[in-house]
Amino acid sequence: MTPPPQPRAGAPTDLPEGDPFGPDNLPYGVCTTAEHPDRPHIVVRHGDFVLDAGGAAAAFGSAHADLLQQPLLGPLMAAGRPVWQAVRAELREWLTAPEHRETAARFMRPLSEVTMRLPFEVADYVDFYASEHHATNVGKIFRPDNAALPANWKHLPIGYHGRAGTVVVSGTPVVRPRGQRKPPHEDAPSFGPSKRLDIEAEVAFVVGTPSAHGESVPLSGFRDHVFGVTLLNDWSARDIQGWEYVPLGPFLGKSFATSVSAWVTPLDALDAARIAPPARDVPLLPYLEDSAEPEPGGIDLRITVSINGHTVSEPPFSAMYWTAAQQLAHMTVNGASLRTGDLYASGTVSGPERSQRGCLLELTWGGKEPLELPDGSRAFLEDGDEVTLSAWAPGPGGSRIGLGEVTARVEPSR
Amino acid sequence: MTPPPQPRAGAPTDLPEGDPFGPDNLPYGVCTTAEHPDRPHIVVRHGDFVLDAGGAAAAFGSAHADLLQQPLLGPLMAAGRPVWQAVRAELREWLTAPEHRETAARFMRPLSEVTMRLPFEVADYVDFYASEHHATNVGKIFRPDNAALPANWKHLPIGYHGRAGTVVVSGTPVVRPRGQRKPPHEDAPSFGPSKRLDIEAEVAFVVGTPSAHGESVPLSGFRDHVFGVTLLNDWSARDIQGWEYVPLGPFLGKSFATSVSAWVTPLDALDAARIAPPARDVPLLPYLEDSAEPEPGGIDLRITVSINGHTVSEPPFSAMYWTAAQQLAHMTVNGASLRTGDLYASGTVSGPERSQRGCLLELTWGGKEPLELPDGSRAFLEDGDEVTLSAWAPGPGGSRIGLGEVTARVEPSR
Repeated sequence: MTPPPQPRAGAPTDLPEGDPFGPDNLPYGVCTTAEHPDRPHIVVRHGDFVLDAGGAAAAFGSAHADLLQQPLLGPLMAAGRPVWQAVRAELREWLTAPEHRETAARFMRPLSEVTMRLPFEVADYVDFYASEHHATNVGKIFRPDNAALPANWKHLPIGYHGRAGTVVVSGTPVVRPRGQRKPPHEDAPSFGPSKRLDIEAEVAFVVGTPSAHGESVPLSGFRDHVFGVTLLNDWSARDIQGWEYVPLGPFLGKSFATSVSAWVTPLDALDAARIAPPARDVPLLPYLEDSAEPEPGGIDLRITVSINGHTVSEPPFSAMYWTAAQQLAHMTVNGASLRTGDLYASGTVSGPERSQRGCLLELTWGGKEPLELPDGSRAFLEDGDEVTLSAWAPGPGGSRIGLGEVTARVEPSR
Repeated sequence: MTPPPQPRAGAPTDLPEGDPFGPDNLPYGVCTTAEHPDRPHIVVRHGDFVLDAGGAAAAFGSAHADLLQQPLLGPLMAAGRPVWQAVRAELREWLTAPEHRETAARFMRPLSEVTMRLPFEVADYVDFYASEHHATNVGKIFRPDNAALPANWKHLPIGYHGRAGTVVVSGTPVVRPRGQRKPPHEDAPSFGPSKRLDIEAEVAFVVGTPSAHGESVPLSGFRDHVFGVTLLNDWSARDIQGWEYVPLGPFLGKSFATSVSAWVTPLDALDAARIAPPARDVPLLPYLEDSAEPEPGGIDLRITVSINGHTVSEPPFSAMYWTAAQQLAHMTVNGASLRTGDLYASGTVSGPERSQRGCLLELTWGGKEPLELPDGSRAFLEDGDEVTLSAWAPGPGGSRIGLGEVTARVEPSR
């Protein structure tokens, strides 16, 4: 247990009308402070302030103080849904009940004064490919001689394992990767910094409750196992990926870095945003059948992708063909177990419109149609570019639920 | 730190002539005992006995006792090569010097009396595809209309990430996975237990020393980062894999279980087995060039694959095209960092002869030429089958260095 730093007294808890990080959101993170850079502790975001959750829990005599006085979210995530719900209710009470707000304010400080960290240890990281628009576009660009969608695409949510050890928190610079790339017109590969560095705007799900090896998690188990949601940028070196990925899938074209937001929004905060997924073109096997989901499987999250402050795309998560519960059911149907900290991402979120495509590969159609930005044209990313993903969803009563942004700047290859 | 159980006095330390687990080997493992099932502790194998390494280290006043009095190998693995060498020299001294053997014997007990555990926490798990014979055979079976070897195969060691959370120790039963499979002659996939459950005989390397994110590990860094070697069975459901793997690679066809030996043999124990890899057909980029390896990159390990006690194959690891150092250099050339506990496997080890193929897919040519075993014919594995991989390498002075076996029995689908 890491003792939290002493909070500054008197920070406000009133939020501007419509703040996307209000009491219906309450995302979790982990931070350090300048005074105590070696003491990571759990915080909850409230507007542009953070609440020292462990400190507040102790002051309020919470039965869950031990789970909140930790350097990472793991123990809370592993505690299971009844505990998540109880802690969430407590946090909301502390931040909104008139009799508690003065005490809570003692444990708040401006977000700008803390340093956010990766809030949990990533166990296994899986990346899906769940947008039909994205998969169709990529198929046309990468495999122009074949059908755009692979034959299996509408029968199962295609996914693969990525590198857990290079998942980094928002703000961490991303070094341009080096590697082998072979353009089609050359005979042999050459080596050097990637010339086609790209982003992928994704939504990721964080597993809390583990599952037993040899068992499957049905669609109805989604909310018992998934703790929360975060934004994810699946950095991709298209030239490295294009040369390496046949037949065993992406490897070094992705493994150099994957950025996640510092904030994990509880699944419960997105209740008002649940919607039906798109109509199905082919019948699904029973373990994936939409009717077996106890609630609508889609989430109406609206993502914004910006480069150096300029919006380049607004992908709608509502357009995803495969739901997060279907991905979880598929991932475990073979008996693969879940661990606390497993992270699985949706794959690039793209909508049907050009302005809704979630990666540069699609936005520039393989680099052939560069984007014109105020600071120059872009086929792919240049050194120094800063990419930011943000998102919000409808909340209760017309409110907005924000997902914490994920941002990073590209550094030159070493 | 877990206190080790009290050893039994007087266990012998003399080994039969030619024992593959003699003082030139000294593999590490972690076990519990019937008296203390909740106290995993580090042991070193000596013949058919185990030495309680933490207990012995304390008795001998070793400066490294803290690293050996742990429930997992992680801290020792992270300590770096100079410490690995120092600890190995101490262990050898305790087990062989006449003045120490009586003390060492107090910390030994029969291997049959302990329960071996997974000896380290697996960080990221990567699987390569480094046997030219295997890749050629699989290409012919899976992709009969294309060139057997993918265009990139001789330019880079193809690899992909697997599921770290389902790596299990030898002896753990493997439940037959369920999933989607679609034979070519059917229109839609069906769901059920895999009908084509297979093994892959592999050799895996365990990373000890981590590396910094953004940096690459050159070929010359192999021995500084790799702690040891273990046998690995990459269980594969060929029907699930065949339907799912295009375009993003194997996922549920592999993720249900990967078995590793309970024993990690230090890399230094294989010094006498280092040999040159096969001749290269195409020039390699500088970061992979064999001449940049400070020692011969191949390892002369002879593997035996048995099903229910009957030898079905003897794959030669010496035939692997890509070396373990090349795999490590490739895996990090894009700046991906290494963590203590990263595990990377060679891919199926197959030699040029039919009797040297490391999986049933090859041995039975996609199931078309079943193996005739004393207990019946096998295209793929049946419930109840027990698969065992073992291996040895030449040691100093004509001795043999054994790798601990990896064995598991197939249980029916649930």
